[in-house]
Amino acid sequence: MSSPAFAEAVKGDPIVFLPIGAVEAHGPHLPLGTDTFQPEFVVNAVCERVGGLIAPTINYGQHSSTRNLPGTIDISFDTLRALVMDILDALRRNGVRKVVVISGHFGSVHRAAVKLACERAARQGMKVMFLSDYELAELRAQVVSEGLPDGHGGALETSRMMDIRPDLVAEARTAGEFVSMDFMVRADPERCLPQGFGGDARMATPEKGRLVNQFVVERLTELVRRNFEG
Amino acid sequence: MSSPAFAEAVKGDPIVFLPIGAVEAHGPHLPLGTDTFQPEFVVNAVCERVGGLIAPTINYGQHSSTRNLPGTIDISFDTLRALVMDILDALRRNGVRKVVVISGHFGSVHRAAVKLACERAARQGMKVMFLSDYELAELRAQVVSEGLPDGHGGALETSRMMDIRPDLVAEARTAGEFVSMDFMVRADPERCLPQGFGGDARMATPEKGRLVNQFVVERLTELVRRNFEG
Amino acid sequence: MSSPAFAEAVKGDPIVFLPIGAVEAHGPHLPLGTDTFQPEFVVNAVCERVGGLIAPTINYGQHSSTRNLPGTIDISFDTLRALVMDILDALRRNGVRKVVVISGHFGSVHRAAVKLACERAARQGMKVMFLSDYELAELRAQVVSEGLPDGHGGALETSRMMDIRPDLVAEARTAGEFVSMDFMVRADPERCLPQGFGGDARMATPEKGRLVNQFVVERLTELVRRNFEG
Amino acid sequence: MSSPAFAEAVKGDPIVFLPIGAVEAHGPHLPLGTDTFQPEFVVNAVCERVGGLIAPTINYGQHSSTRNLPGTIDISFDTLRALVMDILDALRRNGVRKVVVISGHFGSVHRAAVKLACERAARQGMKVMFLSDYELAELRAQVVSEGLPDGHGGALETSRMMDIRPDLVAEARTAGEFVSMDFMVRADPERCLPQGFGGDARMATPEKGRLVNQFVVERLTELVRRNFEG
Amino acid sequence: MSSPAFAEAVKGDPIVFLPIGAVEAHGPHLPLGTDTFQPEFVVNAVCERVGGLIAPTINYGQHSSTRNLPGTIDISFDTLRALVMDILDALRRNGVRKVVVISGHFGSVHRAAVKLACERAARQGMKVMFLSDYELAELRAQVVSEGLPDGHGGALETSRMMDIRPDLVAEARTAGEFVSMDFMVRADPERCLPQGFGGDARMATPEKGRLVNQFVVERLTELVRRNFEG
Amino acid sequence: MSSPAFAEAVKGDPIVFLPIGAVEAHGPHLPLGTDTFQPEFVVNAVCERVGGLIAPTINYGQHSSTRNLPGTIDISFDTLRALVMDILDALRRNGVRKVVVISGHFGSVHRAAVKLACERAARQGMKVMFLSDYELAELRAQVVSEGLPDGHGGALETSRMMDIRPDLVAEARTAGEFVSMDFMVRADPERCLPQGFGGDARMATPEKGRLVNQFVVERLTELVRRNFEG
Repeated sequence: MSSPAFAEAVKGDPIVFLPIGAVEAHGPHLPLGTDTFQPEFVVNAVCERVGGLIAPTINYGQHSSTRNLPGTIDISFDTLRALVMDILDALRRNGVRKVVVISGHFGSVHRAAVKLACERAARQGMKVMFLSDYELAELRAQVVSEGLPDGHGGALETSRMMDIRPDLVAEARTAGEFVSMDFMVRADPERCLPQGFGGDARMATPEKGRLVNQFVVERLTELVRRNFEG
Repeated sequence: MSSPAFAEAVKGDPIVFLPIGAVEAHGPHLPLGTDTFQPEFVVNAVCERVGGLIAPTINYGQHSSTRNLPGTIDISFDTLRALVMDILDALRRNGVRKVVVISGHFGSVHRAAVKLACERAARQGMKVMFLSDYELAELRAQVVSEGLPDGHGGALETSRMMDIRPDLVAEARTAGEFVSMDFMVRADPERCLPQGFGGDARMATPEKGRLVNQFVVERLTELVRRNFEG
Repeated sequence: MSSPAFAEAVKGDPIVFLPIGAVEAHGPHLPLGTDTFQPEFVVNAVCERVGGLIAPTINYGQHSSTRNLPGTIDISFDTLRALVMDILDALRRNGVRKVVVISGHFGSVHRAAVKLACERAARQGMKVMFLSDYELAELRAQVVSEGLPDGHGGALETSRMMDIRPDLVAEARTAGEFVSMDFMVRADPERCLPQGFGGDARMATPEKGRLVNQFVVERLTELVRRNFEG
Repeated sequence: MSSPAFAEAVKGDPIVFLPIGAVEAHGPHLPLGTDTFQPEFVVNAVCERVGGLIAPTINYGQHSSTRNLPGTIDISFDTLRALVMDILDALRRNGVRKVVVISGHFGSVHRAAVKLACERAARQGMKVMFLSDYELAELRAQVVSEGLPDGHGGALETSRMMDIRPDLVAEARTAGEFVSMDFMVRADPERCLPQGFGGDARMATPEKGRLVNQFVVERLTELVRRNFEG
Repeated sequence: MSSPAFAEAVKGDPIVFLPIGAVEAHGPHLPLGTDTFQPEFVVNAVCERVGGLIAPTINYGQHSSTRNLPGTIDISFDTLRALVMDILDALRRNGVRKVVVISGHFGSVHRAAVKLACERAARQGMKVMFLSDYELAELRAQVVSEGLPDGHGGALETSRMMDIRPDLVAEARTAGEFVSMDFMVRADPERCLPQGFGGDARMATPEKGRLVNQFVVERLTELVRRNFEG
Repeated sequence: MSSPAFAEAVKGDPIVFLPIGAVEAHGPHLPLGTDTFQPEFVVNAVCERVGGLIAPTINYGQHSSTRNLPGTIDISFDTLRALVMDILDALRRNGVRKVVVISGHFGSVHRAAVKLACERAARQGMKVMFLSDYELAELRAQVVSEGLPDGHGGALETSRMMDIRPDLVAEARTAGEFVSMDFMVRADPERCLPQGFGGDARMATPEKGRLVNQFVVERLTELVRRNFEG
């Protein structure tokens, strides 16, 4: 899209989708870019349904518990917040008023950074929606993990990736434990995930993934319509 | 406690408790200091049981959804993080190695600020525990609210305050609704709580509060012992 | 005080008092919280006379010369400035226009931090008064120390504490020397106070303390009236 | 690539390539992502020749002269510097020692931000190479623009894009003037490029682009080998 | 002095003098650079006596009360602190271990900024002395102002400038009042000096100035010798 | 110049010149202050021709390649940017609308810092011109170095200094090599200048310097007139 084409598109008051990805260890069976593939897939599908523009993905996020695991490339809270702030500022200067920020990663500190940037944009007059596609996917977690505990890199995420990028999911898959930290904040927080992921990845299937992804896309489409078209 | 008495106490490798309070609107029936009274009560009771020192309370926190309500005096994410960092640094310089940080307020951005400060201290070698007493109290929420939704300033918090400071809880109490924001980040986030609190405060009783507070104190005592004495 | 009660009170354009305390070594005879007890005492007394609201105390300050002494828990210049700025901002957003900031600690860098925050608030339209109760107490220093040099934790502060919290003042008291630093800025600035305080604490009496505290309260009452009611 | 696969790859002391893209107005004939497509193309080709890993692209840059043109989504100097610093830090923590940072955008302030981040990494022991593929392409500028002045979005960049992504280059192309700013720093710096680009885009051909791109890839391959294998 | 000559000089472990000046309104009879001329004069004279190197002057300072008066060009607390920190860091990297920082301006916030920078250098192992020549000059204030109140731009400073740069002192001189601010922090702090200076400038004479300047030089020479040669 | 004289001068909407110097190694034959002497000389001469005021020099700059050479006293990017921002802010508050910022040092990161500060001032309504006198001098480089490569501390700068301050230029002069860094960002960037300067300083003469300096002054005078008087 060229500069004049963008200027023309903005006149129609479009929704701009801003995907936030991550480079994060997701166990031995999932790629480091798992949290990038998922929101990009969702954003593309939703954008097809409701229209709008897609901004280039922010490819890095903030990570706490997986920070020390090989392959996690994290950026700080401050950097992430500044990055989202700057992009929202630039979109606003360009006349964009409606933004949907979708993060693949669901860490609490990561989301706090993005949320603060979004709050600031809201106070400056933008209509901003912010969520993780994981929040919606999780509503279908029980179906996928059949009542067992599931989490980071578990059955839910593995299923979704088997639908989106089956070529990047390893055949050999195991189950990952959860170890409670009992509220201790540790220098080695990854010990809460001894296998580097949590949940039984053997329960994952592409069919389950398709159902979850469809649900996420439909639910988000509906939410975006209600929030921006109402 | 004088300077030499403190120096002497530190030789015993004591746990230092750092309560974090808040000045935040909690509806018409609860005082602005609700999130200060609760952790101070808990810290005093736990400290009696396990020993240790209590640092002066941080009286201000970060607030998102209640920020615009009368009486909320919030400090920024950065200020809160810096404050906890500085205090932990100073404790470490003083030879303190074990800290329990307890926040009354349970906001996600607020906790992210405190968590980042605690992570840094952990990487510098301190043993740090961080939680909100609300996280423990919530484990008893069902008993108090009898299956109804409950939240900020609702039946749980009101009951606890009726046990701790009954003189500060108003007799006239109503129920507060929750309005879903559908993932929109707004300049007027308080519209999620039209009455300024959420849950049915009429269900609160001092007896329920006592049970919850006892549970919180016992559970925390147990966790502290396991984390620091094990 | 509840949220609606605060909203109502603000309509009357009240003065809000913000006490700033400290956790600082004050020799073997005074508690670490000496600089918290003093301004809280003064604020309570003045508020009784002129009305107004009292904000929760900031319990930590910035310290230079006593920074390395056991028990001093200092926060940085930047943190203190940010904290006061944020609280003044939040008060202003709440409709408060008149603030009296009273610090117990009288360090020059500490005061510079608070002053910068107050200057900013003044430029944003607030009426802000800032002083240390020590500045007023010092006007009666000669009476207390009878012409001898006096200072941090000396006869003046000890007397005041004997009036405010006699239970926290040790019976055994000595005299503390001053050693000139000759303008050297050192990594061990506490060597200017070899005993951890300066002045002859043996000269302290509760009667002297009462006279000084009365003077401080009366003088401050008068200044507050002149500044805000004139 | 999964977490264990990454850990394995790092053992071989690989070069990691970090492409920096941009969202910037490049006249009516080129896409906003021009400065992303170019370095990604180059990095892929060079990585095929010398081996190594490719980190996800930083999709946003800092812009001065084109900042006000439609479609430019710029981030600040500080954000860009922090972003590159954080990524280099995380790579270092992961055991990576050799990094090639390649920026499509060639703005002087943009490069200063990246350079400072690279200098810091170098002082921490990493071997860091930083350049813009434009710097190499420019060595062939004369061949493309046949002695006429050329610049941002001109014959050189258009030719390169006609080789890389011909589908994104508009057929209708004109020439863009340069207006000297005479060292004035202006709020409307885009007036130096009245057409939004500089140079005669009509002179661009895919053949010229291929020659330039080949030259850039070969030259960079040679430089990387000399710097990291020597 | 060339780079190799500097390297040679540093081998002798010299004292480096760093003068801090200011651009500040000093009433109608004194130049804006008054606080630059004074410390430069003193530094030159002391350096002649004790040897050492003189770093280029920092020509700008932080100003509170005179900030709004015509001609005051102030920099912020943070900028001043960073500037002194950076220069001390660079001197340390160059092998310099002894520094005397002399500020002409005597504002409390200004000095706090410089002091924090010096404290950091001291903690990094440098021997740092910091004072304002005004602090020494003031010890002779009574002689100059004959018991009358004197201050910013008054008899003391005017006398000193009549000795240092008589050509820059206006013949027409009056007396400036002091108005007490009663601890109010105001947006128009200059109202404490209605004439833009304080004290009776008519009492100034070059002879008084010479005596004061000689005293300052001798006293500082003595202090420097004691602090660095002892 | 006194405060009232400055206020009077500002009424005439004068150009204010702000020279930026440096303390930087320039080889064995030139003084550390070379980049201060040059812009001060130029500013004085241009100001004589076009009128205006001269602000005190910023005596320190940011340095990359010469940072580790003896005598270079560098300040950080952030400090330099803040310093120029603060001074431009203060000038604007004083009613100044036209500023010419002239830096002796020509480093790319250094200039980026100053440029960002100037861009901000321009967006706030000031008319700001920013250049290095070196940029103009370089237009005559060929005449001086007779076609040979020349650079930092080489024939051009040496000639200029022989015209401005011949007493500070050493008689013994040699030639300095350039070593290409091949785009590596190094912790020892000074290895690009093994002799600490680049170019043949033996080719320098005071006559060449005079011609260059005259050219710079005339060209800058013309540019200033065109930019501010047109």
